[in-house]
Amino acid sequence: MGVVVSLDDNKKLDANPKSDASASIEALLKLTKPGMAQVNQLILSKCGSDVQMIPEVARHLIDSGGKRLRPMLTLAAAQLCGYQGSHDITLAASVEFMHTATLLHDDVVDESDLRRGKSTARMVWGNQASVLVGDFLLGQAFRMMVDAGSLDALDVLSSAASVIAEGEVMQLSAAQNIETTEDQYLEVIKAKTAALFSAAAEVGPIIADADSSMRTACRSYGLNLGLAFQMIDDALDYGGSAAELGKNVGDDFREGKITLPVILSYRRGSDTERKFWREAMEQGQNDDDALKHALDIMKKYGAIEETIERAHTYGNTARDALAPLPDQAIKQALLDVIGFCISRAH
Amino acid sequence: MGVVVSLDDNKKLDANPKSDASASIEALLKLTKPGMAQVNQLILSKCGSDVQMIPEVARHLIDSGGKRLRPMLTLAAAQLCGYQGSHDITLAASVEFMHTATLLHDDVVDESDLRRGKSTARMVWGNQASVLVGDFLLGQAFRMMVDAGSLDALDVLSSAASVIAEGEVMQLSAAQNIETTEDQYLEVIKAKTAALFSAAAEVGPIIADADSSMRTACRSYGLNLGLAFQMIDDALDYGGSAAELGKNVGDDFREGKITLPVILSYRRGSDTERKFWREAMEQGQNDDDALKHALDIMKKYGAIEETIERAHTYGNTARDALAPLPDQAIKQALLDVIGFCISRAH
Repeated sequence: MGVVVSLDDNKKLDANPKSDASASIEALLKLTKPGMAQVNQLILSKCGSDVQMIPEVARHLIDSGGKRLRPMLTLAAAQLCGYQGSHDITLAASVEFMHTATLLHDDVVDESDLRRGKSTARMVWGNQASVLVGDFLLGQAFRMMVDAGSLDALDVLSSAASVIAEGEVMQLSAAQNIETTEDQYLEVIKAKTAALFSAAAEVGPIIADADSSMRTACRSYGLNLGLAFQMIDDALDYGGSAAELGKNVGDDFREGKITLPVILSYRRGSDTERKFWREAMEQGQNDDDALKHALDIMKKYGAIEETIERAHTYGNTARDALAPLPDQAIKQALLDVIGFCISRAH
Repeated sequence: MGVVVSLDDNKKLDANPKSDASASIEALLKLTKPGMAQVNQLILSKCGSDVQMIPEVARHLIDSGGKRLRPMLTLAAAQLCGYQGSHDITLAASVEFMHTATLLHDDVVDESDLRRGKSTARMVWGNQASVLVGDFLLGQAFRMMVDAGSLDALDVLSSAASVIAEGEVMQLSAAQNIETTEDQYLEVIKAKTAALFSAAAEVGPIIADADSSMRTACRSYGLNLGLAFQMIDDALDYGGSAAELGKNVGDDFREGKITLPVILSYRRGSDTERKFWREAMEQGQNDDDALKHALDIMKKYGAIEETIERAHTYGNTARDALAPLPDQAIKQALLDVIGFCISRAH
């Protein structure tokens, strides 16, 4: 838990060695605190409706204690560019609404019972309410973007909305296909996760009217952080570096979702092992014994460690994206978050 | 079928008496034909994706032969204001995408098997694909709005997106509650149907940079046309003025959807009849015999005729909304469409 990735192999960082403490979200939390208080207030007010079910369903998910990393990225990226206005608040809230809408729809698509240890909205209010309240939040997200008044920001965020949905469909098409390649996996997570991280970070410089190199830097930081984040999530679904059974372990396995740990294990495995993966992922032979066997194979081939290693590489790319920018506290906070995202796997 | 509403009681029209032929969509089809060809092309190109399932699902619905009334309203309203650019095409396509996304999600929410006589997308590709492709189309709709470059139009259409979803949730909450009032019904159809008609018409004057009275006129025309349209749809679900069993009759009844014909029959009925409605709509006693009995009660109290009559009134309001505008062919075409929408019930 407290263990943090070694950054020794990151040459960029040799000049500025990181301690374990730097793999932390604390600095980002602190520097975005006043802004996030406003974001949270805006979120609450914009999920209000005379239709009682809407705030009930929306707040069930919104109050469930997510870290709100994405809106923090928007605030931080705006801060990085010296932005002084208030549109970063509006855009940050709209980013969180897009994310919440996606989660509501995802839980319907994945038929999930639990999220963050709580019953999913669809289990409490049904699939119908989850689909429709998701649509409502997406509509509210767009209204807030319009309020912010920047066509460029609207362009980036609305493109992300299409791409996210495209990624989810891609994932649906790839589900239970054990021949999915690492490239296809990358394409899926780029669309379904990294696109929103990227957009969240890019709209900061856009509303700050920063130059295009700033925009490119933030976009690339967000994109690569998002890729690393999702890979770590996928490693965590098999217990992280411990690769052990535990709570919330094995959801992807039971859904036949082809993630990087599975792809690597399948490709590195023997014929017998490949047969096992086919039966587990494609034919639904995925009981607890099968999951235990899956974890054993993953350990044997270091599939989880390798997934974390890949995440580490994307984390370094995110780090390099910000390298040319002048040193300041908010930049350091954004760099710390990379380590934080990756350290979750240990 | 060929019978058309009598407009004798509409004083506005005395000076300009309408023949049966005026209750027609032909003039609108003709005047928007070149524009609609471009809209249709844009629609096809914007539902393209490398993810094969997306165009498959989208085109299943898009090719299923809807009249595309909503995008025609956008083109006509722009024409009414003398608009010469091409953003009406973009906005019209985005209106149709919003509509298509709503239909995809509606079919999931209503668990519908058929739409326009064809299997629904969810029956062919599953609920999951319908939810996600709906999200994709909504994202594409917003991207097109951004392309059109008008923050005012974005404001109107993104507000409509929220309101539509709100209306659908409202309908879900009201479902199977026989005590639903006519006011509550009006609120639901205003949100779930009339809001998009209204927005579709209002963005015409917006991109034409017409004065605010033009905007108000088109908005009001669209809103009231949408209300009339939905009431007629709800009357048609019980066979229209014939109130007879036939294909697609009784879907709302079987879903326990409380529409105006039911509200009026319930409120005008005897205690025994009210007991019947409660059992049918709230407790699901809705077999074919029950539907036949429902139609008999509706006939007895003239509930369908009264629903059509109400629609007629909203149609007249739509007509009056355009009254101050100078006479021109496109205005007449928009007036004809009101009669067309209402005449469907006969």
